[in-house]
Amino acid sequence: MKPPPRNLFQNLPVALNQESIEKLIEQDSFRIERIVSRGQHSPTGFWYDQDEHEWVAVLAGKAELQIDGLAQSVTLNPGDTYHLPAHTKHRVAWTEPNHATIWLAVFWKE
Amino acid sequence: MKPPPRNLFQNLPVALNQESIEKLIEQDSFRIERIVSRGQHSPTGFWYDQDEHEWVAVLAGKAELQIDGLAQSVTLNPGDTYHLPAHTKHRVAWTEPNHATIWLAVFWKE
Repeated sequence: MKPPPRNLFQNLPVALNQESIEKLIEQDSFRIERIVSRGQHSPTGFWYDQDEHEWVAVLAGKAELQIDGLAQSVTLNPGDTYHLPAHTKHRVAWTEPNHATIWLAVFWKE
Repeated sequence: MKPPPRNLFQNLPVALNQESIEKLIEQDSFRIERIVSRGQHSPTGFWYDQDEHEWVAVLAGKAELQIDGLAQSVTLNPGDTYHLPAHTKHRVAWTEPNHATIWLAVFWKE
């Protein structure tokens, strides 16, 4: 298995036919991932509904999160963070199609 | 108490006489902090020796970490990450004096 990247902005996956997910830290009840998207979004009608809490930051690029119950989607620009408590239904509505969107995502159980 | 910043690159503390530490997420056995330094470093002879595991990323600026037992210090440029298992003795040897160094630090217990 390829070692995880030591630099969050480097060694971006060359082909991005689908979202790339790399685990940076993995423990029983806790993990940190780098996610790289280029235009990918959640399928229509698909909602994440996770047992884990998630905290996410967009470090480069741009994304739109849709949160169940919120009328407006949430735009995430570089540096923007968002806390998704467990079972906050959400989906990625949009990511920049022509540039890599780099996410840092932290997941944990209570 | 001031709410934590929603954007990691914005609302930097105006005065940086000392390092600024803001808790972004705080749970019993887990927390995420934004740390902003401008020239601060650990006092001579001081070493962090933590019960918690730490994963750190430099998002802007530049820093040098000194790790007990490593002859060379570790330079952290934007995007660089470093994993410090519990009781890895370390100190911040240097941070950029004229620009803010923005750290994202995640701490957890096993």
